[in-house]
Parts: sequence; structure tokens; C-alpha cells
Amino acid sequence: MDINAIARKFTDFYYQTFDTERHGLALLYKDESMLTWEGQQILGVNAIIQKLTSLPFGKVQHQVSTVDAQPSVPNTANLIVSVTGFLLVDDDSNPIRYSQAFHLVSSDGGYYVYNDIFRLNYG
Amino acid sequence: MDINAIARKFTDFYYQTFDTERHGLALLYKDESMLTWEGQQILGVNAIIQKLTSLPFGKVQHQVSTVDAQPSVPNTANLIVSVTGFLLVDDDSNPIRYSQAFHLVSSDGGYYVYNDIFRLNYG
Repeated sequence: MDINAIARKFTDFYYQTFDTERHGLALLYKDESMLTWEGQQILGVNAIIQKLTSLPFGKVQHQVSTVDAQPSVPNTANLIVSVTGFLLVDDDSNPIRYSQAFHLVSSDGGYYVYNDIFRLNYG
Repeated sequence: MDINAIARKFTDFYYQTFDTERHGLALLYKDESMLTWEGQQILGVNAIIQKLTSLPFGKVQHQVSTVDAQPSVPNTANLIVSVTGFLLVDDDSNPIRYSQAFHLVSSDGGYYVYNDIFRLNYG
């Protein structure tokens, strides 16, 4: 499978889980994982899930516009994935643009999120 | 220097060079560097500079909104840097939003760009 297909499969799963069963994202992070959410730095799967499940919105829907991927280091399966899209929150009809960068590290035949940087792009 | 300061210094230099002397960006890439520009995949410093210097605009100005950084691997100086901002092109008065993700790899006491993913966010 080429890396763009892997990236697409990952983002499909990630956002579907985020939008329907946010706790399930715990499968994708480890103790060494990092999330920067709107500039706030958070370390480790437990703190990350605590943050993501306490965001001040109930219903959320991600609409992905672009997904780009590159191998992050020579001779490994690790990937940088850069995403742009729109977030629809609760019953607000104005989608908010967002950018998210992931670094996926291969482990046990799969991937986990080592780096995650999320920004809403207001205005 | 903390990683956010390094990332800020890098992006200041990168965009100043891009906006005033685009050929000078050759200093920041190597033969193994990758650029994905609006979905087009480009490999190596020569092809990257060829692409960046042949973009269909003369004057360009980047206005950075946010810069976030994380270490990309344990026990190395390598960094993931995620940028959002606006691009002003030629005499167009409508800035275009963009997102850019860099992976900076340490080498010879400095950094070079291993991964570079750029997207304009129209609409």
C-alpha cells in the first residue's frame, strides 16, 4: 500500500473515531505521544484523551479537504501526514477551517501517533 | 534554546528568504529532501528550488499566524514544525490562507528540511 493510501486510511479511521466515539482514540496514542492543541502542549495518551474528551463541544464532524503524506526518515515506515479540512461543531452551521499534522510511527505491524499538532484557522 | 524558539527562528529565516531571495532556500534542503506542493511530490534540493523559483508569482509575502513545534523522535534534536498563515501574492489584495508542515533534521550543528508539505487553503 502506498503511503498516501496509508495516510488516507489512518485519517478516515481517526476522524470517524473522533466524531463518533472519542474515547476510542486512546488506541492511537502511547505514553510518549505529544499533542499540541491550539498551542497547548499535552504529553501522553491519558492526558491527550482527557483533553480530547473534555473539549467544549458535543457533536463534531470533520470534513477532510486534503491529506498529504511523506516518509519521515529514510528506511523506516514512519510517516508525516498533513491534513486540512473543516470542523462542524454542534449545531453551528459555519464550519471552521483546521490544519492538523501527524507523525505516525510504526509499531507492531501498525502505527501510532507520536506527534499531533492541531490548529483551528479562524477568520 | 527551546524548540519553539528554534522553530520561530527557522520560519522567520525561511519566509524572509522565500519572500526576498527565493534561490537562497537551496541552503535549507538536501538531495534527500521532499516537498509536496499542492499535492505535487518533488524530491531533492535541485528539483525543489526549480519548483519554488518557477511559481507563477513575482512578489510574494508570507504572514505567519501560528507556529507550533514538537521533537519528532525521542533523543534527537529533530523537529516537526506546523505553520498556518496567509500568503499575499503580487498586487492581489486578498491574502490566501496556507498551511505548511516541516520536518527539520539536525545536521552539522544546524538543521535542514527533510519533509515539507505545503497547501493553499482556498475558499
